[in-house]
Amino acid sequence: MEKIKRREFNRIFSCGLGAAALLTGAPWACAMSGQNKNKESLGIALVGLGSYSTYQLAPALGQTKFCHLAGIVTGTPSKERRWASQYNIPSNSIYNYENFDSIADNDSIDIVYVVLPNSMHAEFSIRAAEAGKHVICEKPMAMNVAECEAIIQACKKAGVKLGMGYRLHSEPYTKEVKRFVRERTFGDILYVSTEAAYRSTGYPDQWRLNRALSGGGALMNMGVYAIQSAIYSTGQNPISVTAQEFSTRPEYFKETDETITAQFEFSNGAVANIMTSHNIWANRLKVSCSDGWFQLEPASSYGPLRGASSDGAIKFPHQSQQKLQMDDFARHILEGTVNRAPGEMGKRDMIIVEAIYESIANGNSKIALDLGQMGIVSDR
Amino acid sequence: MEKIKRREFNRIFSCGLGAAALLTGAPWACAMSGQNKNKESLGIALVGLGSYSTYQLAPALGQTKFCHLAGIVTGTPSKERRWASQYNIPSNSIYNYENFDSIADNDSIDIVYVVLPNSMHAEFSIRAAEAGKHVICEKPMAMNVAECEAIIQACKKAGVKLGMGYRLHSEPYTKEVKRFVRERTFGDILYVSTEAAYRSTGYPDQWRLNRALSGGGALMNMGVYAIQSAIYSTGQNPISVTAQEFSTRPEYFKETDETITAQFEFSNGAVANIMTSHNIWANRLKVSCSDGWFQLEPASSYGPLRGASSDGAIKFPHQSQQKLQMDDFARHILEGTVNRAPGEMGKRDMIIVEAIYESIANGNSKIALDLGQMGIVSDR
Repeated sequence: MEKIKRREFNRIFSCGLGAAALLTGAPWACAMSGQNKNKESLGIALVGLGSYSTYQLAPALGQTKFCHLAGIVTGTPSKERRWASQYNIPSNSIYNYENFDSIADNDSIDIVYVVLPNSMHAEFSIRAAEAGKHVICEKPMAMNVAECEAIIQACKKAGVKLGMGYRLHSEPYTKEVKRFVRERTFGDILYVSTEAAYRSTGYPDQWRLNRALSGGGALMNMGVYAIQSAIYSTGQNPISVTAQEFSTRPEYFKETDETITAQFEFSNGAVANIMTSHNIWANRLKVSCSDGWFQLEPASSYGPLRGASSDGAIKFPHQSQQKLQMDDFARHILEGTVNRAPGEMGKRDMIIVEAIYESIANGNSKIALDLGQMGIVSDR
Repeated sequence: MEKIKRREFNRIFSCGLGAAALLTGAPWACAMSGQNKNKESLGIALVGLGSYSTYQLAPALGQTKFCHLAGIVTGTPSKERRWASQYNIPSNSIYNYENFDSIADNDSIDIVYVVLPNSMHAEFSIRAAEAGKHVICEKPMAMNVAECEAIIQACKKAGVKLGMGYRLHSEPYTKEVKRFVRERTFGDILYVSTEAAYRSTGYPDQWRLNRALSGGGALMNMGVYAIQSAIYSTGQNPISVTAQEFSTRPEYFKETDETITAQFEFSNGAVANIMTSHNIWANRLKVSCSDGWFQLEPASSYGPLRGASSDGAIKFPHQSQQKLQMDDFARHILEGTVNRAPGEMGKRDMIIVEAIYESIANGNSKIALDLGQMGIVSDR
């Protein structure tokens, strides 16, 4: 048995196997840790070099401790040259959508981060898993629940880790909200009012307005933040949903939903009222409790976020949320720390998205949900 | 023709009749002004001496310029003595519910303010009108639309003025909101999020929890503020409503609605999402516009209110809202200024209340409304 470093010791223990696995040196103790063994920092390949990769993820990867930008996957040759030069990416770590699968042979790349239009999430997450790479998938996880499940199964089969690009679970304001809920700082959670929305006035040919590429409009985009925040503000999955759709600029939003409101019931008695839109500026989370309140506004922007509660201001130094997120996921792989946003969470949110669309299609009627603890992560 | 004082001249003119009426001295020029002629301050009788009369209206009437506390109507003899002594009310201006109609003979009382449980609003508003008194009716106007219409017709027939107890239309923060809407300060109104709610944990035998007396729960109480604010924040009446009801403490809210959310569509493209509750602490109005935002929080409490916009803080000196409201109504009678909250406004709000209950009863389905300009007051 090779000398076991402290980090690896922790990793094996954190898999919940502990001494037995350690003593037998079982190779399956942490299925994912094999190829990343002894690495201090994991290599990430970004798939899709749009604005989120360009202005958020790549800069964040210049600040991460446990991962770094190691490769790119793009369909645009001019981007290859620009990124290679700016980030010193070796030519053998640059892929296009056709030769992507050969990434399996590239030991410098441990994680594939899928930052493509929604319609390509499932395909590239699954191809990444089949290439033996850990996967981060941007939100929404895929076009529908069936695709989410396919991604989860592919990762399971390949023995790779799967995380959602839910950056907020790693940033301090959201973690503070989760602490309030966990510790009942303000008593019972009674009501969550949350909005995640922006006003789109740009090119009408952007992929988010194209149903074949996006699968839906505001709900499939900012709506996921609203759903997420309703859940981490209550610590529960909803047990029912009602929803409404509003259209005021059909000439611009030809194929995708413009504004959606939805209401969730929770088994602990909380009620959430969410709004998401591509036509409205709003970004806020307010939670009314039996013994006070707390709020974030903005609540899901790239930050700095701002917070307050009935006890006063909530204030944390601003850090890149994407840096925190990717380091958390890398540490999950390297050290076995908790996966703050596993694939099950993305799938659960897609179940809720589909229930919202179903309510709208059924005259705003109430849709019951039976999610149990799916996607609920205890990550104190 | 008697000498016409400037105030009376203004009054006749403001009735929209102008020179012709003036020249003929037509007695119907302002039907309501006869008995109040030459008064500088109108006498108000409060009907129902519960906490709102005790802690808000009576103190406010100590500050009003154009009206004063002149009489009381109560079913509780011990209150008669206490109020008579505290406010120097002569014994011939004290009534009970049986002898109330003889108020017709009391020239010291010009206005009857109905502050009773909802089930008694219609009866006492109509009896007041039939006694020839102007009427202020607390919100909600009555138990249903039919009762609202009966009140309006009774006041019309008696030639008396009718105002709703909608104090916010007279206070500066709400007037500022209406100015923003009128002047398009922040561009198009896109989204209104508003909550008017408190958490009831008091005696379960209070009248607000008794359907026979209240006609409904949160919606018939705080819900009216939420409906009102959605309308004055858009300057329009809704063209449709969807609604949802939530129940988490049925053992306490045995007969009345606990929490209701509702969504309004407006013909100018705005959407409103309202929440009202007897189980949640929340009091807020936020309006998202194409070029900014504005908000009040609290938005409908007795004040001080607080406001902010994308241009900075909104700040006005605090004054008693009830003082401002009652003086506005008295000036409407004395000087012909605008009636900021006429009976039509209360009736319109009850039409919306009924539509919300109808949506809930019909599986949350969308209910179309055809309100035109009903209750919309241009009161710059």
